[in-house]
Formats: sequence, C-alpha cells, structure tokens
Amino acid sequence: MSTLSTALQTAIDGRWAHIREEARSELEPARFAPPAAELTLEEYRARVAAQLQLLAQTGHPARGLSKDLGGQGDYGASVTAFEMLGHADLSLMVKAGVHWGLFGGAVASLGTKRHHTAYLPAILSAELPGCFAMTETGHGSDVQSLGTTATYDPDTDELVVDTPTPAARKDYIGGAARDGRMAAVFAQLVTGGESHGVHCVLVPIRDEDGEPLPGVTIGDCGAKAGLAGVDNGRLSFDDVRVPRTNLLNQYGDIDEHGVYTSPIENPTKRFFTMLGTLVRGRVSVAGGAGAATRTALTLAITYAGHRRQFAPPGGAEEVLLLDYRAHQRKLLPALATSYALMFAQNDLVSRMHDVACAGGAADPRDQRELEARAAGIKAVATAHATATIQTCREACGGAGYLTVNRLPQLKADTDVFTTFEGDNTVLLQLVAKGLLTDYRDTFGDMDTLEMVRFGARQVAGSVIERTAARGLVERLVAAAPGRDAEEAVADRGWQCALFEDRERHLLETLARRLRRATAPGANAFAVFNEAQDHLVAAARAHVDRVVLEAFVAGIDACEDLAAKALLEKVCDLYALSTIEAHKGWYLEHTRITPARSKQVTATVNALCAELRPHAQDLVDAFGIPVEWLGTELLPQPQGRDAAAG
Amino acid sequence: MSTLSTALQTAIDGRWAHIREEARSELEPARFAPPAAELTLEEYRARVAAQLQLLAQTGHPARGLSKDLGGQGDYGASVTAFEMLGHADLSLMVKAGVHWGLFGGAVASLGTKRHHTAYLPAILSAELPGCFAMTETGHGSDVQSLGTTATYDPDTDELVVDTPTPAARKDYIGGAARDGRMAAVFAQLVTGGESHGVHCVLVPIRDEDGEPLPGVTIGDCGAKAGLAGVDNGRLSFDDVRVPRTNLLNQYGDIDEHGVYTSPIENPTKRFFTMLGTLVRGRVSVAGGAGAATRTALTLAITYAGHRRQFAPPGGAEEVLLLDYRAHQRKLLPALATSYALMFAQNDLVSRMHDVACAGGAADPRDQRELEARAAGIKAVATAHATATIQTCREACGGAGYLTVNRLPQLKADTDVFTTFEGDNTVLLQLVAKGLLTDYRDTFGDMDTLEMVRFGARQVAGSVIERTAARGLVERLVAAAPGRDAEEAVADRGWQCALFEDRERHLLETLARRLRRATAPGANAFAVFNEAQDHLVAAARAHVDRVVLEAFVAGIDACEDLAAKALLEKVCDLYALSTIEAHKGWYLEHTRITPARSKQVTATVNALCAELRPHAQDLVDAFGIPVEWLGTELLPQPQGRDAAAG
Repeated sequence: MSTLSTALQTAIDGRWAHIREEARSELEPARFAPPAAELTLEEYRARVAAQLQLLAQTGHPARGLSKDLGGQGDYGASVTAFEMLGHADLSLMVKAGVHWGLFGGAVASLGTKRHHTAYLPAILSAELPGCFAMTETGHGSDVQSLGTTATYDPDTDELVVDTPTPAARKDYIGGAARDGRMAAVFAQLVTGGESHGVHCVLVPIRDEDGEPLPGVTIGDCGAKAGLAGVDNGRLSFDDVRVPRTNLLNQYGDIDEHGVYTSPIENPTKRFFTMLGTLVRGRVSVAGGAGAATRTALTLAITYAGHRRQFAPPGGAEEVLLLDYRAHQRKLLPALATSYALMFAQNDLVSRMHDVACAGGAADPRDQRELEARAAGIKAVATAHATATIQTCREACGGAGYLTVNRLPQLKADTDVFTTFEGDNTVLLQLVAKGLLTDYRDTFGDMDTLEMVRFGARQVAGSVIERTAARGLVERLVAAAPGRDAEEAVADRGWQCALFEDRERHLLETLARRLRRATAPGANAFAVFNEAQDHLVAAARAHVDRVVLEAFVAGIDACEDLAAKALLEKVCDLYALSTIEAHKGWYLEHTRITPARSKQVTATVNALCAELRPHAQDLVDAFGIPVEWLGTELLPQPQGRDAAAG
Repeated sequence: MSTLSTALQTAIDGRWAHIREEARSELEPARFAPPAAELTLEEYRARVAAQLQLLAQTGHPARGLSKDLGGQGDYGASVTAFEMLGHADLSLMVKAGVHWGLFGGAVASLGTKRHHTAYLPAILSAELPGCFAMTETGHGSDVQSLGTTATYDPDTDELVVDTPTPAARKDYIGGAARDGRMAAVFAQLVTGGESHGVHCVLVPIRDEDGEPLPGVTIGDCGAKAGLAGVDNGRLSFDDVRVPRTNLLNQYGDIDEHGVYTSPIENPTKRFFTMLGTLVRGRVSVAGGAGAATRTALTLAITYAGHRRQFAPPGGAEEVLLLDYRAHQRKLLPALATSYALMFAQNDLVSRMHDVACAGGAADPRDQRELEARAAGIKAVATAHATATIQTCREACGGAGYLTVNRLPQLKADTDVFTTFEGDNTVLLQLVAKGLLTDYRDTFGDMDTLEMVRFGARQVAGSVIERTAARGLVERLVAAAPGRDAEEAVADRGWQCALFEDRERHLLETLARRLRRATAPGANAFAVFNEAQDHLVAAARAHVDRVVLEAFVAGIDACEDLAAKALLEKVCDLYALSTIEAHKGWYLEHTRITPARSKQVTATVNALCAELRPHAQDLVDAFGIPVEWLGTELLPQPQGRDAAAG
C-alpha cells in the first residue's frame, strides 16, 4: 500500500480504526470469506450457522451490550465490526445482525432485568439462536398495523399469541426456517378486551431437538435472490401460550392482577419509542451496504486499471479501460460518493454511540435526530450500493457475471437492503416529515390537519439540522463567490450553498403545499399523496447536504497534507456530480445558468481525469483484505503455461 | 381478459401475432416454465439440454433457416418465437439462441454448400450441439483483435488452430462446458505467413462420449449471476488440426493450392460484413429483454393492484400500493417505455425479416441501417430491462426478493444482456459513429482524421434516419403549437419535435467537436475520448426518437378506437417521461422554459393517475400465460384455514 493510501485510510477509518484493523487481521479472512464453491441452500445455512458460533467465541458480540448488562458498552466498535463483516460474507453479516443486533437488541432494550438475566448470556454465546419476528405477510412498512395478537389470559396468567389471518403470518424472518429457538414476536397486546398497541413478547419456537413447539407452524421462504446463508422463514401461532413475564416490559407492562401500565401514555409515541431503541439496525445496514459497495468498487477499479481494450488510432498498445472517459464516468463519481458516505457513516456511528452511552440521560432531541439521520443515510447508502454494484458488474463485462468474481453475490446479497429495515421510499418520507414537524413522535395523536399546520409553522426554524461541520460550512458559504463568478464551481462554499438551497427550497415549498390539506373540504390524503415525490426529493436533498458536510468535516480533521489535498478533489467530484445529477432542478429553479451547468459537467470530467492516476490509491485505502477480494478480476499471471490451466 | 386488453394485445402482438399465439398455447407452459425447485448447476444444465431436444422436435428451429437450405425462411417468426421463450425460461432462451441462432447462424451465413449439407440437418435436430467461440478472455468488445490463430499448413492441407496466450483463450462460451460437440471458432486466418484477419473455422471439441478431443482444453465458467442452465465454458487449442474445408468460406477462402481469396478486399470491411450477417443475435437479445421486462412489470403491477399498506388519514381501508403516486411513478412510466420498445422491436424484427428475405438482393443501406438499429435498440432495451426489473423487485419489497416470485431470477438472468452480444456503451458509440459517417464499414481503411472530416461533412444529410412513421411525424411536427403555447406538452408533434431537436443538436455539436481532431498537432484519441459521453448521448437520443416514431406508427395502425385512445395516453407518458428525464439537457439548451419543464412533470403525474385504472389491462395485454407468472405475487386465497399452509 502506498504512503498516500495509508494516510487516506487513516482519514476514513475514523474513530473505530482499531476495530477495523483488528477485523482485517483477526477475523481470519480465509475463515470468514464467502464460500469458494457452489453450496446448496442447506450447506450454506449450515456453514453460516457454524460461523456464527465461531464469531460468538471471539467475544465481539459483548461489545454491543451495555456494561451493566455484562457487555463492554462499546456500541461504535460493535457496529464497526459488523460493517467489516460486510467485506467478508454478507450472509454471515445479516445472520449476526439478526441474532445479536435485532433479537439480542430487543431483549436488551425492550426487556427488563428478568429477561436480561435469563437470556442475555445464552444470546451472547449464541447458544440460544433467536429471531426478530416483526414483519408479517400483510404488513411490512406499516408495522403499527400488525395482525398478530398477544392476549392476556387472567385465568392462567399467560399471554396467548395468535395469528388470526394468513396476512398476520410472520414472514421473511431471519433464523426462523432452520436455527431459531426463540422469537421476539411483535404483536398487538390485549388485556381485558383492550388493545394497547404493538409490544414484543418472547416466544420459544423450537425444542431442544429443533422441532417446532406445539401451536407453532414454521415455513421456509426457500431460495432468495441472495443471502442464501440466512434461513428466512415464516411463523404462524395457533393460540400459543407463554408466561405473562415473557412480555418485554420496558415500555409497557402487565402486573400480576392483569393491569396494563406504561410510562408512555400515547400508544403511537410508545410504539415509536420502542422502535427508536432499535436504531442500530438501520445504522448497521447502511454500514454493511457501504462495505459491500467498496468491495465492488475495489474490484472494478482494479480491473479497469489493468484490463485493456482497443488500440487508439495510430497507437500500438491497447487502452486501459480506466483511461476511457466513459469508464471513468461510470466508476469515479461513484467512488467519490462512497468516500462521502463513509465519512457520513462514521459520523452516524459516532452519534449513535454517544446517544447509547448517555442511556436514559440522552437528550430526546439527539435521539430523534439520530433516528432521522439513520433512516436517511440507510436509504441513500443502500440505493447507492444497488446502483454502484450494478455499474461495477457491467464495467467488468462477462467477467463481472461470473460468481467466482464476487460481483454477482455482492449484487444479489445487498439487493434487499433497499427494502428491508425500512423500505427506502417510506424511510425518506419519514425523514421529510420529521424535518417538517421536528416532532415525529407526536404524529399519531394530533389531528392530521393540525399536524400539517404545525409542520408548516415549524419549518423555518428547523430545516438546517446540526452537523459536525455546520460552523465551518457557514463560514465557507459566507465567503463563497457569487453565482456568476467564474471560479464558483470549484469553491466549496458555493457547492455547500447549492446543496443548502435545494434542501431549503424543497422543504419550504413542501410545507406550503401540505398546508393545502387544511383548506375547507380538502382531501388530506390526496394532498399528501400528490406531494409524495416532493417529500422524497426533500429528504434526499437533506441527506445529500448532511453527507457533504460530513465530508467537509472529515477533510478538516485530516492531518496528512497530501491525503487532504486529494480528499478535496474527491469531495469536489462528489459535490459537483451530485449537482450535475440534479441540474434539471437547479436550472428549473434558475439556481444556476445554462453556462454554469455546462461548466459543472466540464469540471466533473476534468476531476475524473485528475483523479484517475490516484484511483488505485483511493480503493487501496479501503483496506480490504486480499482474501476477501482475490478473484480473477485482479491481475493474473501471464504466459503460455497459464493458458492450459 | 377484458375487451380492451384483447384489442391492445392485437396492437402490440404485431406482424407475427400468430406465432405469439402459437407459443402461448403450444409451448406447453408447464413444460417450459422456469424450474419450480432449487436445482444444482448440473441439474439445471441437464434440464435445459433436455428442453433443447424437446424444442428441436417442435420444428420451430427450421423457421429461421432459408428455404434453399431446407428451412422455412420465416425469420421474423423465428425471432418472435425466441422472444416468447423469454417469458418462459431465459436459460432455455439463451441456450437455444447460442445453438441455433449463433452456431447455426454462423454455419448458414458464413459457410457454403459443403457446410450446409454436412451440418445443418444435425444442427436443426440438435443432434450436433454447437458453440459460438468468438469472445476471448482478452478480447470481448474488440473482436477484430482476437488472439486465436488458424494457420494453413500446406503439407497436410489442414488448418492449425491455436491459443497462443492465456488472453486468447475462448471464454464465456455457451455450450462449451458440458454439451457442445463442435465450435464455430473465430480466429486470425494465416496463410503463407500472412494474416487475413478474423475468420470462422469449425472445430470439433468433444468426441461421441463427450470427452474433449486431443489438443482441446475445456474449462468451466462455473456458477454465474444467472442463466444457470447455460453451460458457459472456456476453450483453449493446442495446435488442433482440422481439414482446410472446415473454414466457413463464404467471405474468404483458401484453395487447394493454399491461396487465399475473398470477394471483399478490405479486411475490416470483410470482418464487419461477416458480423453483419449475425445481426439476428442482437435483435433476439433485445426481444428477450423485452419479454423478461414485461413479465416483471406484470408481476409488480398485478401485486400493486391488490397489495394494501397504510390506512389514509381518517380512512378505514388501507391504500392499494398502485394508488400511491410514488408507486405509480416507479412502475407506469416504465410500463409506457415497455410499450414503446415493443412497437420498436416489432418494427426491427420486420426490417430484419425483409432484409433477410431479400438475401443478396438487399439494399446495402438497408443492411447497414438494420445493423445500427439492432445495436441501438439492443442497448436501450437491455438497459431498460435491468433498471425496470430492479424497480419491480423493489416495488414488491421482501416478496420480490424470494425466488418463488420469479423477480430474482428475471433480474439475474437478464443482467448480462447489457454487456453480451455487444457491450451497451460500445454499441451506442457505434450507432453514433454510424450516424455521423453513414458508412460504418469504411472506418478501417480511412485515415482517422479523414474519417472525422468525412463524418462532419455528412452529418447534415443523414441525421434523421427513416422510420415507418417519418411522413406522419413530419406532418405532426409541422402542425405542432409553438414552444410557448399552453397546450404544447400534450401535442404529439411538439413531443416529436423535442426528440428530433435533441438528436439533431447532439449530433451536430458532436460532429463539430470531432472535427477538432483534424487540427494540426491534435491528439485524435484524446479528442475522441473526451467526446465519448457525447457519442453515447447522441446515440441514445437517436434511439429515443426512433422508438417514439415506432410508437406513433403503431398507434396509427391500431384499428380499435378504445385501444387507440389508451395507447395515445401511454405514448404521451413515454414521450413526456423521457423529456422529463432529460429536462436538464432541454433547460441547459434553452429548448424549454422552466415553466414548461414544471408543466411536463405535472403532466407526467396526471398521466400516471389517468392510466392507473387501466394498468391491469395494459399488462394483461402482454398475454403472458399464467403458468409463467403464477407466483405468490398474484392474489392469494384468504381465510383462516390458509394461514396454516
């Protein structure tokens, strides 16, 4: 690795660099690498289940648990280690995320001492493999409307868990098809005929021999596009009885007299508080998507750096793919965006860690901001993964289509990331609504019209969310050259101002638009529905701005001058290719002139050419162990003898 | 199927509607459906090999062969039947395409009577499974630079076929890994120390027992992203000897004295003439991509028409996914584009048929136009397939990720279409160069600078290629309201004018730009390279215009008034969503005002809402047998009993 790569790596490895280094050297790449041979579904599942046991022995999982529960309380380290698994085998990453992150996270965050004592040791050691049974066949995005019921029976002091309709069947549940022994089941909690909304109940689903317990019907989702090592399945409950104390009762409890109580009176607020404690899942998916994307870019850019095709007019030696502008255009702006997202992800993990460390003392505003940030970055990072891995596959032609070259599996494994842990389209709408109201958790109990009015009133004050670089960015924007200055496009302040402007305008016009829902006789649903794309665009603009500011902060913190100078160019490419992608909007809103728009495109081209000599350094800095990359896309030995191989 | 759907189907089934009907009823959907269970690579390959034999028995393959060679000379029927296989199993479609289309096509088009007599009967009956061995590890896009050699040995009157370097290994060759007995090998033909460029030689590769013949090393590409039923492999030749007469000698021959002769003196022109006879491959891939895309849209739109999520404010019943604007926006413009591409494909197949029927009497200009059209539509149709099938997967959430619901396999199988049978980026550049010079086959023997100058001089006259609807479109454009008229966006002439304008401007500026290569001291490669994206954009604009005009012609030919009226709306959506996608360009070039740009977006939204009630009719009209669609995405039976299933 070059000196420059090492310096770049230091800049992007971030606060938990030591964890990344540990994963690179101690995760035994050969052991945790994706399978080299074709495996059947059962073989792959068995392999990943065995790897999970190996991971348990490393002691890593205890990092994600607070100290008072017997863990190390190093949440950032836990999520960073998870992200590194994304360079290895994504099935293993998801399997680990389901068991420790979602199932273990539910027990730790939604449960109380009795659950912690009874289950956390066996969860940490993976002796009790668990499922997170939230999604149902009929409800995935709208989990508040789940159909599964958990009804308190005062005669036996038990909860009766039931699947009343086919649509209420738990579906796509990781761990359900093969390994899970216990499920954290989300169900409408009912006492004395009254529903208290969705709560989580621990339900054993298999006995010691792995057979389904009475009343539990287990189905298998079978083969999927990818993630073959994860045993997704289906769970139906036919009046399955569990002790009352199996209710994870942190935010809602039933006492021995059958009386329901909760520290949070409003059921919607209560539900979203419960969900909020699970924010680590979205942070982790965004991280895993980033890792997989960086693997794909490393493969495609390394390949394009030695693969030649077509001799130039009058030239003898064929041209390297990466010297073609069309090829640079495919890969280098995507690489710049991956850098930007890595800084944003590091910042997100850091916030998540700090909020988790603060525990009950955390500022509720920080928690809300973290949730919105996680939702937004998850949506943008996973969409970037889907598009970029696709581009990388195509940039490698037929070679990119072969399983041995990993790109097919990276594509297939990450494909579901855009729709699980929150569908991206739904998440971005949530982000926009959160920005408008700044009080997402009050949605449920406010009249819709009132909410819209409220949102519209709030917008001016809360549009520009805090980022680490806010002060710096404000100074840059203040010093930016005017719209018509020649040097504008290369000025960071000008770029930041354009990002801010797009976000602010989209939010302000959105607020005005939604206010129409308050007009007499207005169809509130129609108003919202017609503004749906506007909501998504506003959220997207917000995340773009947050990501750019994270990049600015990351450069500011970089101490190596050569790395810093190169990162400035990479940031230019991220900023300008983003502006170029939205040039229709900027021109439509007369934010840039046609001449400036053309200048942006010319500058993106020039930046691609400038960065091309450093492309290999930039991907080397991702520090992905060669065992996780070693494919036919890397340079191969040449010579006659190799032909027969 | 509704009356409207039936009328729509008549409009889009086109000239070979009877072949589509035959495939729907006689291809035995259950028999040719994608496999229901998980298969190993070997099981899938064996299944497809057996299906190929079944297809041989149907007599279909003889349609694609000329009457004088014992076939039916119904080329359009042959390609249409192939397209229908794209609704069934894409592995089978590609396997059939490799054997009959590419291998059989090479023997028929590049060979002469001796090859036709010796091999065509066994090729038609699939008793002699063949390979098309063109691509090498080192050369895919630039096949003129292949490394394999076929050297004439006058002592034995044989051709010696050899793989001189690892890069010259034949790679990704369908049929090579398991079933192929003979390969049509593309190699540099050498006689008396002189190379005559790439020619095709028949080389037996396996004996009767399926063992590799002496000197032939066969490798297996192993698992791929998709198309698991196609046995792609690698072939290396170590001085393998075949009779001189194994040279497919239509365009270049070696006589018994070892003297090389060819009816086409220029080697480049000769090579591209040979490639030109294989245009059917690209036409077929475009057709298969279209079929797969329509399957995906049918699944996603049908699902969105019964799947509900989230109750509206104040409403009890949850909203159907297809009633959400964001969901309409994802699926309906893609549906409109699929309609547009279907009309364009029908027109392309018809031209291909007519040129093939004319045989040697075909106008060379028609042949060149056909090749350019096939390259352009292949690139656009396969890119549309990749994007749309991805969108359909995401629109179905977790359900879309399950193999049982077919979307994963559609995505994985079609993924390679964007880069095989010509990489899309390379193809679009060819289209642009063809438009500029109008004489693609003179590229090789003209000085580069001369070529550029030539191209620049030609551009004015040859930009607007002929389409079936040209006269009609010219009348529409002439009658179009002015740029500032309120009603403009809904006017077909206005839309056509915008498409034409974008194409013409991009080509004219491209020609000017490339002329810079003629300046003293200019770096010709750098000039071309910097214009690469411009070439691609110009070609894309050209194809967009051709596709729109095919849609206009298709509507003009539709006799059912209700269907016609609906198709006009679908065409509006195609045209305006395309203009919207390029609004950055139109605004940058002041072709539309910001106000008009916003009006385009508003009209696209309105059209989505107008077409929403007809969405099911529009996909039903694709006429895909339910056996090829039957998945969990279609409406399922409801009720308590079904829950336990």
